[in-house]
Amino acid sequence: MGLTVGVDVGGTKVAAGVVNEHGHIIEKLKRTTPAASPDATVGIIAEVVNELLARYDVDAVGIGAAGFVDEAQATVLFAPNLAWREEPVKKRVEERIGRPVIVDNDANAAAWAEARLGAGRGQNDVVLITVGTGIGAGIVLDGRLYRGRFGSAGEPGHYRVVPEGRVCGCGNRGCWEQYASGSALVAEAREFARRSPDAAIRLLQLGGGHPDGIDGPAVTAAAREGDPGAIRCFDIVGSWLGAGLADLAAILDPGCFVIGGGVSEAGSLLLDPARAGYKRGLTGRAYRQFAQVRLAELGPDAGLIGAADLARIGLGLPEFYRTAPLSSSSRG
Amino acid sequence: MGLTVGVDVGGTKVAAGVVNEHGHIIEKLKRTTPAASPDATVGIIAEVVNELLARYDVDAVGIGAAGFVDEAQATVLFAPNLAWREEPVKKRVEERIGRPVIVDNDANAAAWAEARLGAGRGQNDVVLITVGTGIGAGIVLDGRLYRGRFGSAGEPGHYRVVPEGRVCGCGNRGCWEQYASGSALVAEAREFARRSPDAAIRLLQLGGGHPDGIDGPAVTAAAREGDPGAIRCFDIVGSWLGAGLADLAAILDPGCFVIGGGVSEAGSLLLDPARAGYKRGLTGRAYRQFAQVRLAELGPDAGLIGAADLARIGLGLPEFYRTAPLSSSSRG
Repeated sequence: MGLTVGVDVGGTKVAAGVVNEHGHIIEKLKRTTPAASPDATVGIIAEVVNELLARYDVDAVGIGAAGFVDEAQATVLFAPNLAWREEPVKKRVEERIGRPVIVDNDANAAAWAEARLGAGRGQNDVVLITVGTGIGAGIVLDGRLYRGRFGSAGEPGHYRVVPEGRVCGCGNRGCWEQYASGSALVAEAREFARRSPDAAIRLLQLGGGHPDGIDGPAVTAAAREGDPGAIRCFDIVGSWLGAGLADLAAILDPGCFVIGGGVSEAGSLLLDPARAGYKRGLTGRAYRQFAQVRLAELGPDAGLIGAADLARIGLGLPEFYRTAPLSSSSRG
Repeated sequence: MGLTVGVDVGGTKVAAGVVNEHGHIIEKLKRTTPAASPDATVGIIAEVVNELLARYDVDAVGIGAAGFVDEAQATVLFAPNLAWREEPVKKRVEERIGRPVIVDNDANAAAWAEARLGAGRGQNDVVLITVGTGIGAGIVLDGRLYRGRFGSAGEPGHYRVVPEGRVCGCGNRGCWEQYASGSALVAEAREFARRSPDAAIRLLQLGGGHPDGIDGPAVTAAAREGDPGAIRCFDIVGSWLGAGLADLAAILDPGCFVIGGGVSEAGSLLLDPARAGYKRGLTGRAYRQFAQVRLAELGPDAGLIGAADLARIGLGLPEFYRTAPLSSSSRG
């Protein structure tokens, strides 16, 4: 007893891991996502899980998927980077692996893991913001993952920060993720290099001589070297990030924001302007407490670990033990 | 057993009522708020409650106050329209009435009442938006009132909808309540009357001949008569209201928005453009369900009724019975 499998299904990779009752990954496997085919994606999940089931006594499987998931944790309604549309993932995977399956949004799963075991541990009200190509989020309130009435809560990447602002992939304009994501960081750096090539020498070097060659890691590398243009890009994007945190705090008043995702690897380059923007923007700031703004701690495994624990909860097993040692005797 | 007192403390009036276990008000008293004096406001609350205690067997008292209240439901941290700053209202009222007291934000209390007994009854995830001079809100998630880590959740009136937008009383710029409140409606109508007096004849009539004489009831009256300029004011403000609901739904995905407050008395004049703006703005709208957008049902007593039930919960008594008849035998 006590083992579950967590699966993180992204647009490019499927990662599956056996996770124990303390949230530790015992074994992990990766596959390439055959994203264009709904059937093949279900097939690869079943294949990699069955490989793990052959070696471990596993009670349940949790899948974190990049998309809208219904409130029953069963059906992926819409996954922008996968071919799933109204796909009954729970049922189809259960048929192939013979274990109970729950499905949740990947950022929800990651938020749950960070709230229980990562940067938000010990806190009841935690909002995870993952800053990557776009902005993902998961919301833990009163110690529980909040999914919303229809399963679609936690998409602040698509609340509007600028009326008639930048076009977003969701079909709207002015969404937060168009201003505070890795894509925004790169767009800012490329625009800067186009307009002020003399001031962007280092960025252009790292981009192979062309503005369009500048990517996220290049901006981070230049900023770490102290390049003023690259630092300015982080300041702009970080300020937008912080302004959004202030908006979220006006609504949710969490104890802690956890910032994850690829761009958060830049650390204080992103978090310093985000914290400043948050403190500048919070309503009633003279009369209230500020939430902590912390870097995520579990890295890219957060979604997998969280999905494994959500499977435990779905099955009625005890949640992860937060503090018990690895040698706890509760394993069967 | 089964009776509590609910008190609604606003900037101009204190209303206190004895409420039974079905949420019905048995007797209600009103006083003018001596808003400028923290002591006198506590005194008037104690006075009116003691008058009720002399006639009814009451277990506890709930106070809904227009301000930030701490997470312990004890201290009013900041009340813009009262003189309370870090005021230990729970302790000071308990000393004078000899009953347990809880304090909560007035919009939280109203949201709880609407979610349990009003327009949101039967739903677990309900957001109340009160559209008055400003915008107030209360959030019920998973069937429980959500207060946030520090007690300040549910202030979407002060999330930013326009960067560097209109100045707000909170000290920030571009807050939602500067665009979607009764104040915004009146400002829109006055500006229209100033710029296009020939098209604003009816509005100006109702305003006594001057743009600055136009108030909220005048705009509503003109719109009800079919005045195009007044209807346009509701369209503009209602669209901003709906755009904000779309943002809140991206974050919270509730099952139901309940729209209350003075401006909501205009009914479909406000709600039609709000619903349209909400549907136009919701991210992922092709792949998800829309929350209901409903008019509040309990009117100005919602805060009092909700505060009375929050006192029941604070005392560990059963919450309101939703469906039991008034003649239930559970009264002591």
